[in-house]
Amino acid sequence: MSDMGITVKKTEDFSEWYVQVVLKSGLADYAPVKGCMIFRELSYAVWEKVQEVFNKKIKSTGHKNVYFPLFIPESYLKKEAEHFEGFVPEVAWVTMGGNTPLEERLAVRPTSETIIYATFGKWIRSWRDLPIKLNQWCSVVRWETEATKLFLRTREFLWQEGHTAHTTKEEADKEVLEILEAYRDIMENHLAIPVLSGKKTENEKFAGALYTMALEAMMPDGKALQMGTSHNLGQHFSEVFDIKFLNEQEKASYVWQTSWGISTRMIGAVVMIHGDDKGLVLPPKIAPVQAVIVPIPYKEEGNEAILTKAKTLLGELQKEGVEVILDDREEYTPGWKFNEWELKGVPIRIEIGPRDVKQKQVMLARRDTHEKTAVKEEEAIVTVKDLLEKIQTNLFNKAQEILRSNITTARNMDVFKEVLKKKGGFIKASWCSDSKCEERIKEETGATIRVISSDEEPFAECVYCGKKANHVVYFAKAY
Amino acid sequence: MSDMGITVKKTEDFSEWYVQVVLKSGLADYAPVKGCMIFRELSYAVWEKVQEVFNKKIKSTGHKNVYFPLFIPESYLKKEAEHFEGFVPEVAWVTMGGNTPLEERLAVRPTSETIIYATFGKWIRSWRDLPIKLNQWCSVVRWETEATKLFLRTREFLWQEGHTAHTTKEEADKEVLEILEAYRDIMENHLAIPVLSGKKTENEKFAGALYTMALEAMMPDGKALQMGTSHNLGQHFSEVFDIKFLNEQEKASYVWQTSWGISTRMIGAVVMIHGDDKGLVLPPKIAPVQAVIVPIPYKEEGNEAILTKAKTLLGELQKEGVEVILDDREEYTPGWKFNEWELKGVPIRIEIGPRDVKQKQVMLARRDTHEKTAVKEEEAIVTVKDLLEKIQTNLFNKAQEILRSNITTARNMDVFKEVLKKKGGFIKASWCSDSKCEERIKEETGATIRVISSDEEPFAECVYCGKKANHVVYFAKAY
Repeated sequence: MSDMGITVKKTEDFSEWYVQVVLKSGLADYAPVKGCMIFRELSYAVWEKVQEVFNKKIKSTGHKNVYFPLFIPESYLKKEAEHFEGFVPEVAWVTMGGNTPLEERLAVRPTSETIIYATFGKWIRSWRDLPIKLNQWCSVVRWETEATKLFLRTREFLWQEGHTAHTTKEEADKEVLEILEAYRDIMENHLAIPVLSGKKTENEKFAGALYTMALEAMMPDGKALQMGTSHNLGQHFSEVFDIKFLNEQEKASYVWQTSWGISTRMIGAVVMIHGDDKGLVLPPKIAPVQAVIVPIPYKEEGNEAILTKAKTLLGELQKEGVEVILDDREEYTPGWKFNEWELKGVPIRIEIGPRDVKQKQVMLARRDTHEKTAVKEEEAIVTVKDLLEKIQTNLFNKAQEILRSNITTARNMDVFKEVLKKKGGFIKASWCSDSKCEERIKEETGATIRVISSDEEPFAECVYCGKKANHVVYFAKAY
Repeated sequence: MSDMGITVKKTEDFSEWYVQVVLKSGLADYAPVKGCMIFRELSYAVWEKVQEVFNKKIKSTGHKNVYFPLFIPESYLKKEAEHFEGFVPEVAWVTMGGNTPLEERLAVRPTSETIIYATFGKWIRSWRDLPIKLNQWCSVVRWETEATKLFLRTREFLWQEGHTAHTTKEEADKEVLEILEAYRDIMENHLAIPVLSGKKTENEKFAGALYTMALEAMMPDGKALQMGTSHNLGQHFSEVFDIKFLNEQEKASYVWQTSWGISTRMIGAVVMIHGDDKGLVLPPKIAPVQAVIVPIPYKEEGNEAILTKAKTLLGELQKEGVEVILDDREEYTPGWKFNEWELKGVPIRIEIGPRDVKQKQVMLARRDTHEKTAVKEEEAIVTVKDLLEKIQTNLFNKAQEILRSNITTARNMDVFKEVLKKKGGFIKASWCSDSKCEERIKEETGATIRVISSDEEPFAECVYCGKKANHVVYFAKAY
């Protein structure tokens, strides 16, 4: 464990810094299978927090969790042409069951629209059966050929995928937005990551969707990260899979559908945005350990009093709902423990030494600002709880500031290219809504339209062709 | 929905009854992929209850949840010979990634020992890194060729698999038993299913284990169902995957390991054991809906008062932690609702009609005994909570009685065969511990040794060869 600390600075070699933080904090590890990763206890516990928040939200709005099969017959995947084309280059195919070749090869699910909707057709008869609002937590496989980036680009990752069916387009529209707001709540209020939201362009929308809404965050290296998407699938899939319902007048129509997902890539964003040169920094609301108590023994003297005090505080904090642990391991020094818990991103460290026992106080160290304060024993509980909120807010505010300072307006391609080269980030521009302009910008610069703004009016002509613009859009290079 | 009710009796056509209950209650459905199934909202919600109970238990004893990759390279699976032979006939193989044939084919995990232990070798250096106690919730694939039986035999199912590494055999032994007890607690105190526990024979143990402990339940058709297993893997895998640690004296040894699992097949056992001719009967502790309030309107008259009373009761019960819903759908009649909720196994139905409003009472109907009682409004909350406990206990006691009456002692093969033919169930016998006797009994009768009793002394000579017996064992035909 002598190689424990992070050996590069975040500002000097961001990419190497990221890998070191992920591996050394124990968030994740590379798997023996190329392109795959292991979600170790720390990242999985963060994922469980996300699950808890999102499950509570969607269950309260009538969604139900289910589990559909991992395998999708090729013929199902092929039924919606756009969808098939979008996913087939990245499908892992099962061709053998035991020693027997399969008659039809099976896709390991890259996403489950086709298998779920093949079943909706069977379940839905009348308006009484609608809406159906299902969700599943599972892993999906997309056979990436580019280099692996832990959490951000791996051949298998964890996600949730929601699938709903409704009687009208309006209801589906509403569902898409409700989910988008639930996602934003998780990102901004739990992960402390501010996001831009808006519609995707036709080029960038989900394969088979009517339209896609997305949330995009900005990473410290100037690249955007798509954090979540919510699609109105229209009637594309219901026509293909023949999902009809009889309305109250006994007239048959195709259902309107939505699908939506967030994945473990969000954990990569947490690392990138909040982490520092000492390692991970976890927002308190998703930190599996919010506070760690470290006793600081001094030459045997008064150690019992220190431990007693530590245990009392532990119990009191637990009673107040703080996720706290006591690190009383004897085989490690306090200094070693400080480094380890900083590396793992624990929001608050509580130190108790002989002096603290005498003075009836504890030392509180903030992970985000590295500030250390002595606090009177009787104020410890309140102060810790208060501090957790302050840290949560501070992390969000800092990230918000970074996002703001990374949005640059461009009125022409010269400025566009210069900003992209020198600074990166989001480039806010006016656009004529012609896919050709979008594609040429992508070819020339590598930047894509991340979202179309829903509430801003064009402030100039199209940044590429100079013709009349219809939309304000946010361009960026993206992960 | 006119085909809603169960059309056969449990005692007349058990197999057909089972399929009807599973499908019509909405627990599960067949998938478009042969041999696979869909865990619909009701079974998934039961599974979430199991997860909640088990997560709480194992987290409190220092286990951590993680997620390892779905794919296992063939070479890893091959490393432990017994293990490979045990699983390879049932492996689904991925051979293509996109359009490219893979250099090495990948197994879709049938179980994760090999991929997890390949990684343990990397993580474990010294005694300070031990014990490692990990668990994952995931699906596994075993390419069954026999006919699908929902929950009991499908090509993909959900489970948890625990994997631990320890410094000594004793510690591993202790882990194996601790987990077995946690499993028993779930089965007996939550699923209300009594189980026999004991060691498996060499023939029946897990492929690659030193020994396997198992919990076995008896189904109403006289066949045993393995409900959970906990294995001491000894040092078999640690030698193969070179998982060594330095002890406090800096001496290197191989770690001792355990693995253990329970799966969604337990839900099949719940259906079989507690279900009746009206459908599913769920034990209150795992019922996603513990009570349903059904208003019984009568010719518009006083309907508002009925609904007000229903909503008040709903709120009060929710406040008390009862998982209750109000079925105020107008498109269905009370009678239709009664049938639906009985089919879905909801433990208590609460009826409120005009008469109940007048008399300041509610009607409580028990799902398990079909008893109906009028209860004074002010006693409703206490009575419902009390009734939930009574139903839980009653279901367990009934199942316990069935288990007891299905254990028959046999001292020779004539009795053995007659019992098996006429009655089935567990056959308690003395055994010489020779695998040949075990194998011949299996060939001649189809029955296998489900568990070796750990606390009973042989009461006769070996039931097969007549030589001195060493163990009391429980035989049965099994799912």
